[in-house]
Amino acid sequence: MTVNEAREALKALQAKLSAYSHATALIYFDGATTAPKGTAANRGQTLAVLSEEQYRLSTCPETVELLEFLDAHREELPATEQRIVFLALKNIRDMQKIPMAEFVAYQQLLVEADDVWHTAKETNDFALFEPLLTQIFETQRRFAGYCAPEKLPYNYCLDQYEDGLTMEICDRFFATLRERLVPLIHRIGNAKQVDDSCLFGSFDDAAQEAFSHRLMQIMGIDDAHCGLGTTEHPFTISLGSHHDVRITTNYDPENVASSMYSVIHEGGHALYDMHSADEFAYTLLDGGVSMGIHESQSRFYENLLGRSRAFVQYVFPVMQKCFPAQFKDVTAEEVYRAVNRVTPSLIRTEADEVTYCLHVMVRYELEKRIMAGELAVHDLPAEWNRLYKEYLGVDVPDDTRGVLQDSHWSGGNVGYFPSYALGSAYGAQLLRKMRETVDVESCLKNGDFAPINQWNRENIWQYGCLKKPNDLLRDVLGEDFDPTVFTDYLEEKYTALYHL
Amino acid sequence: MTVNEAREALKALQAKLSAYSHATALIYFDGATTAPKGTAANRGQTLAVLSEEQYRLSTCPETVELLEFLDAHREELPATEQRIVFLALKNIRDMQKIPMAEFVAYQQLLVEADDVWHTAKETNDFALFEPLLTQIFETQRRFAGYCAPEKLPYNYCLDQYEDGLTMEICDRFFATLRERLVPLIHRIGNAKQVDDSCLFGSFDDAAQEAFSHRLMQIMGIDDAHCGLGTTEHPFTISLGSHHDVRITTNYDPENVASSMYSVIHEGGHALYDMHSADEFAYTLLDGGVSMGIHESQSRFYENLLGRSRAFVQYVFPVMQKCFPAQFKDVTAEEVYRAVNRVTPSLIRTEADEVTYCLHVMVRYELEKRIMAGELAVHDLPAEWNRLYKEYLGVDVPDDTRGVLQDSHWSGGNVGYFPSYALGSAYGAQLLRKMRETVDVESCLKNGDFAPINQWNRENIWQYGCLKKPNDLLRDVLGEDFDPTVFTDYLEEKYTALYHL
Repeated sequence: MTVNEAREALKALQAKLSAYSHATALIYFDGATTAPKGTAANRGQTLAVLSEEQYRLSTCPETVELLEFLDAHREELPATEQRIVFLALKNIRDMQKIPMAEFVAYQQLLVEADDVWHTAKETNDFALFEPLLTQIFETQRRFAGYCAPEKLPYNYCLDQYEDGLTMEICDRFFATLRERLVPLIHRIGNAKQVDDSCLFGSFDDAAQEAFSHRLMQIMGIDDAHCGLGTTEHPFTISLGSHHDVRITTNYDPENVASSMYSVIHEGGHALYDMHSADEFAYTLLDGGVSMGIHESQSRFYENLLGRSRAFVQYVFPVMQKCFPAQFKDVTAEEVYRAVNRVTPSLIRTEADEVTYCLHVMVRYELEKRIMAGELAVHDLPAEWNRLYKEYLGVDVPDDTRGVLQDSHWSGGNVGYFPSYALGSAYGAQLLRKMRETVDVESCLKNGDFAPINQWNRENIWQYGCLKKPNDLLRDVLGEDFDPTVFTDYLEEKYTALYHL
Repeated sequence: MTVNEAREALKALQAKLSAYSHATALIYFDGATTAPKGTAANRGQTLAVLSEEQYRLSTCPETVELLEFLDAHREELPATEQRIVFLALKNIRDMQKIPMAEFVAYQQLLVEADDVWHTAKETNDFALFEPLLTQIFETQRRFAGYCAPEKLPYNYCLDQYEDGLTMEICDRFFATLRERLVPLIHRIGNAKQVDDSCLFGSFDDAAQEAFSHRLMQIMGIDDAHCGLGTTEHPFTISLGSHHDVRITTNYDPENVASSMYSVIHEGGHALYDMHSADEFAYTLLDGGVSMGIHESQSRFYENLLGRSRAFVQYVFPVMQKCFPAQFKDVTAEEVYRAVNRVTPSLIRTEADEVTYCLHVMVRYELEKRIMAGELAVHDLPAEWNRLYKEYLGVDVPDDTRGVLQDSHWSGGNVGYFPSYALGSAYGAQLLRKMRETVDVESCLKNGDFAPINQWNRENIWQYGCLKKPNDLLRDVLGEDFDPTVFTDYLEEKYTALYHL
């Protein structure tokens, strides 16, 4: 085999794997959006077959031989292919350690868990979900043991979503946030509360859907390559390549801000995914590099831009047009203040920018303890409720609005949550950098996202998975990650907003 | 290999193939319903990979060896598995004759053709679609040559959709219809026309969607296993097994009957697909046996039941509830007469029961001549228009409402159309048989589809693909197929309706 033949073979293999990933992602998307409710077992049957084949293709001796050959000749490869070989070998080394039958069984478990979680959440029945969640955490611990026996299991999970992340880093990061945010939240709690009643009323689905499409248009999302669906829990998914991305939202008939900021958040994910370099399509380099960087983009659009005064001023007339009766006697400034109301609450996805990190900290604490074997899944609801009381001062009335609220665990995404908080902090530092060359305020005031998107595309999006998350950040920032940029931003914004 | 081992291997292979068929069907369904419009090429890329693997799995030496081994031991197999082996070998013998590269290229061609057809239809631009349609017919001729060189190419196409169907049979069948229906249409043309204005007005999508769900419920379609989507051209598709079926419709904002009868038609297909014996799931026996039998079910529900006086009487109050303003001053009898208005028209899917067969005959004539090399695709629009004038007496104003109206050719379904007319005729004879034991009129008057569905399930649906279409019909009817039952039914119904 010549190096050029091997490169061609690698390309063909990557295209094949992208096709399987397209099929499985679409089956997941269909299940979450439009599939009839009795069809989960049918999807499980199909996913078992496809994921077995995906596993086989990724780890079979021919593939390993091919990658090792290319790895031995890496000096002769362009940087992109060096990275593909590195990532593929890293995946294989992990996957090889997981027995195929267990891998396939886990995929089926996740399909069933997703279905049961939906029912459990609807009916406030944690006991229904408990056995499946127990199995998911047990599998995660087992897989961590197979793949990285030298690491603590939860460190393995964290590293899956953010290359190099450890409990030590998280503990330090969250300590900084806690030190700066808890006093801020305390001061806000003593200030005069913002009135957000203008966001509440009756908002029908059709009008909210039209508004969602307008928001996507304003953000510069190409609707020829990005669709919008509705699901219980909003998410973003790529189908096969960055040429077909879907975002979803959930319409709250009484609260216009809920779907509005879901769309902007998922829209941020979509923009990142959609703008990998075209040559990366159908390869491992396509799409975002880590969950932390992904969340830095989604929360960048959602909060740093979407909840800024300049953007709200621009978007307010659009809201008035979509919901004329509801916003007849309201001002842009009232909406700006309302969408930035800080208040300890129950639901993470609807939390404000400031208390959001405390929601994440609850989940981090719980995952850490379950993965360490210090907490049983059975005791999770009680611990959840205790920590919500301790961190946020709120009483959790039921598991639907408590431990069952997020889809992450039913999807097997243990170790994901910290990246939300990290992403928020990355975003603040990225915005400071962007401001050196882009007049962000004037862009937002004019609803002109092109220069902002252009900057993100040049500095972040185009690289897909080519650079490691830390390298990507350092290259664009020209300095180390510094969470105090984020805490400074929050202090400044909310000191003004609450006249502290 | 023991026979039992081989049977297990066959089961596993069937399950695998069902998974691929689930994935490809879902990608098609997604493309037709919710995918963003710039994503066809991305789907083509994935379908190429999956169909290549499907092809490989179906025809590889191991599979052939397995099937031939089982075929040699067929006496030891239950009847169901004998039939599976027979059907699988038949497919293989065909597929083996098609070079894999051509098969894969054809799948990609169909994805592109579907996309281009949509645009061509929207913009009334046949020239845009012509090169792709030319390639599709050429491929069909080439594949017919590979698979059945002893047959005329179009006979090969007909046989694909209805086992044993030939031009000779079609010519005879259509001659009977022509002989009986042309005079009937002529007499109707001279009678006082029915007023169908009550069906026209303004019907919003949301109300039509709610009405569609009510219709599905009335028909006894289990919504836990059957979904409803919207597409340009309505269709029914099974995803992986009969446990997940989707139907689609198209809402005409000005004509309530258009989607109403699409839903009932596709609902008939869905009922058939959904009620294969459970043991047939994930095997070749799952779902309907032929297009003719399939259409006998869909057109049975649509016309024989759905356009009967008894059903319209039952459903009329439901229509009034869904569209109160539109049906305020209308009677059930007026709706009954309106949905049975006979008039030569442009669009097949909206044609009445009587002229419908003439629409099919136009397509049959054209396909026959193209496949015989007697007509070029380039000349298709002119010939289409000429035949519509000759058969139906109508002038085709543009290709959108002419040759571009159906999705069949862009989907490669050459030879499908005759089964619509055959199915209609089968249905009439099935209804006569059903009446011997079921009080169909009283069921319809009470909106109680259970006894009707039960009869169809026992006599037709449960068998899936176990029996050959002809055997299935003969077993249930106890006599040969006789198209005059259908023409008698039409004559009787429309003589009364038009006071002839």
